[in-house]
Amino acid sequence: MTAVKIIELVGSSTEGWQEAAEDVLTEAAKTVRHIVGMDVVGWTAKIEKNKIVSYRANVKIAFIAERP
Amino acid sequence: MTAVKIIELVGSSTEGWQEAAEDVLTEAAKTVRHIVGMDVVGWTAKIEKNKIVSYRANVKIAFIAERP
Amino acid sequence: MTAVKIIELVGSSTEGWQEAAEDVLTEAAKTVRHIVGMDVVGWTAKIEKNKIVSYRANVKIAFIAERP
Amino acid sequence: MTAVKIIELVGSSTEGWQEAAEDVLTEAAKTVRHIVGMDVVGWTAKIEKNKIVSYRANVKIAFIAERP
Amino acid sequence: MTAVKIIELVGSSTEGWQEAAEDVLTEAAKTVRHIVGMDVVGWTAKIEKNKIVSYRANVKIAFIAERP
Amino acid sequence: MTAVKIIELVGSSTEGWQEAAEDVLTEAAKTVRHIVGMDVVGWTAKIEKNKIVSYRANVKIAFIAERP
Amino acid sequence: MTAVKIIELVGSSTEGWQEAAEDVLTEAAKTVRHIVGMDVVGWTAKIEKNKIVSYRANVKIAFIAERP
Amino acid sequence: MTAVKIIELVGSSTEGWQEAAEDVLTEAAKTVRHIVGMDVVGWTAKIEKNKIVSYRANVKIAFIAERP
Amino acid sequence: MTAVKIIELVGSSTEGWQEAAEDVLTEAAKTVRHIVGMDVVGWTAKIEKNKIVSYRANVKIAFIAERP
Amino acid sequence: MTAVKIIELVGSSTEGWQEAAEDVLTEAAKTVRHIVGMDVVGWTAKIEKNKIVSYRANVKIAFIAERP
Amino acid sequence: MTAVKIIELVGSSTEGWQEAAEDVLTEAAKTVRHIVGMDVVGWTAKIEKNKIVSYRANVKIAFIAERP
Amino acid sequence: MTAVKIIELVGSSTEGWQEAAEDVLTEAAKTVRHIVGMDVVGWTAKIEKNKIVSYRANVKIAFIAERP
Repeated sequence: MTAVKIIELVGSSTEGWQEAAEDVLTEAAKTVRHIVGMDVVGWTAKIEKNKIVSYRANVKIAFIAERP
Repeated sequence: MTAVKIIELVGSSTEGWQEAAEDVLTEAAKTVRHIVGMDVVGWTAKIEKNKIVSYRANVKIAFIAERP
Repeated sequence: MTAVKIIELVGSSTEGWQEAAEDVLTEAAKTVRHIVGMDVVGWTAKIEKNKIVSYRANVKIAFIAERP
Repeated sequence: MTAVKIIELVGSSTEGWQEAAEDVLTEAAKTVRHIVGMDVVGWTAKIEKNKIVSYRANVKIAFIAERP
Repeated sequence: MTAVKIIELVGSSTEGWQEAAEDVLTEAAKTVRHIVGMDVVGWTAKIEKNKIVSYRANVKIAFIAERP
Repeated sequence: MTAVKIIELVGSSTEGWQEAAEDVLTEAAKTVRHIVGMDVVGWTAKIEKNKIVSYRANVKIAFIAERP
Repeated sequence: MTAVKIIELVGSSTEGWQEAAEDVLTEAAKTVRHIVGMDVVGWTAKIEKNKIVSYRANVKIAFIAERP
Repeated sequence: MTAVKIIELVGSSTEGWQEAAEDVLTEAAKTVRHIVGMDVVGWTAKIEKNKIVSYRANVKIAFIAERP
Repeated sequence: MTAVKIIELVGSSTEGWQEAAEDVLTEAAKTVRHIVGMDVVGWTAKIEKNKIVSYRANVKIAFIAERP
Repeated sequence: MTAVKIIELVGSSTEGWQEAAEDVLTEAAKTVRHIVGMDVVGWTAKIEKNKIVSYRANVKIAFIAERP
Repeated sequence: MTAVKIIELVGSSTEGWQEAAEDVLTEAAKTVRHIVGMDVVGWTAKIEKNKIVSYRANVKIAFIAERP
Repeated sequence: MTAVKIIELVGSSTEGWQEAAEDVLTEAAKTVRHIVGMDVVGWTAKIEKNKIVSYRANVKIAFIAERP
């Protein structure tokens, strides 16, 4: 049997929310392998001078856990 | 008085989350008429080889129930 | 110490959900200053004749409260 | 064994919330039989010119599923 | 200092939901004294032959705890 | 585009919960215009000597925000 | 694109909760095809004379929606 | 009218979760009569040396309240 | 096997929230024995003339149920 | 009847969470009168160099709404 | 003082849900030591041809964090 | 773009809840760098002989993820 591990990350983008969520995948792929799914659990933004300077997405990533 | 019925569907797209949610509307429109609103209750994605192969949206569709 | 105030608004757009959420920022900026962040808490749509006529986003806006 | 099915409907009334919830039962009884229970999960209202023009109740109806 | 205790009861009525919630107060008053508040946390109904035979209300009752 | 604003109020009545929720509408109509909907998010009561002395309803009011 | 539909059922068994949840699958399979997953959202039981007479499971079933 | 009371208990077992939930019924039956239903709201376990030493179930028990 | 019972109390203090939560323990210890844990589920305060006159904590207390 | 209004604020302090929540009261008292209660709905902190530089509390303030 | 860390894993089994949850413990024990508890937060299943091919359990594991 | 990672820890203290939450920060700082924020999601306590022997705080820590 193979256990799946779930971690939570916050991605960001200056383009939009979809890009912020995809940023999480890009970052996660640098340290874990065998990612199988993601679940976006929050959408926020940081604002300065009435402009969104950073779109942000809280994302749960599921991946097949490998043993050392 | 006319009752409104609410059903839950999961739409998918290879393009993005907005398209996945709109896919639900396209599918629902094939079997029910008089859709009045939708509420996106979940955003997920299926991933293979570090790429999103399917954007998915859990959507509640409200439509005016017709009697047979 | 400066308190931050949180208000809830519903934005709308005929283009898409990201535009609906950004619409909230545009509207809020007309009456409050020093907005620091936003949190999208709901994504809905109004539908007529199987078409989305209005994308809507429920958004919580955080801004630095000013005293009169 | 007999499975029970749960559906969600929105009832409405110009009289009050109890009538809006009971309207769901009246509507549901036209298409399903053997309703055993209901659970009111939301109470809203539509307003025009400072008057409630429609009381609304989101109701989950449980009924014994019949096979075709 | 006097601690307040919170208990949950389900009241019922053949008349309506308000009566079902008030039924909880009537019942609770038979065993506890110094009730200070109530919070209705659920509204359901039992149905037979397309009629509501019992309106029900889940209610949390707060009362000042007395020591034996 | 016109943003909709959402505020939360607590109404009260000595008659019943429906009256408590409608009390919110009466009060809100004194300071804001163009109310379009309400959502009752809580039902409580204050009790003295085993009698409900005040029915209370927590209500979210949605209205079209006007600019000064 | 193929939309997935989600329905909620309550299964029951005199044996145990796992059997109650599996009962939902047995019942659902009589009317819908292409079931892909299930999510158990509630575990309850009906009790008489201090014995569980019916284990119950609230289950959400996801299946590929077919068009007529 | 007869009010139903709801209490929360935590049962435990060295065998499994179903036994832990049923343990609550066994314990509750020693002090209250006329139990009509139960709702399992949490499943946990205590672990020592990589073994589950105690399966635990948080259970809400509903019973017909008797007056002294 | 020994069942654990969970009750909810509201403690209060004029000093602060930690004292309000601890007040629940002091009160509970007067009527139940073998308290094993507590879970603070709400923090509120009563205010008069812009001063907190009573810090309050909603607390769930778990104790080993004794049989009469 | 007098409606109560509920607003959400975020207070901050360099001392601790209780001070952050009380900071909300201090700030709110500058613009609204007749505050009757508060409910702390979130506790967070901002951190720099492994030190908490700002304790923060999300607080809902209830006050008696005055008419202009 | 010793901090406890909480991680989320998804276990699976072809036998049943209890086995799926215990599978998480087996997998977690391969990489972390000093596990003290687990909390099952979700029960799902993957289905093919009207049969459950994989029982799944989302489990939060608490263990005493060790420093490198 | 830099992804932020979120982990959950349980801190403890014999002094109070604020110290328990700060304990999480002390522990986390031993293994991760660039912590930017924390969110306290639960407050509990372990009790023996009617005394709190351990204040506990469930805390989510956000930190800038570093790549190996």
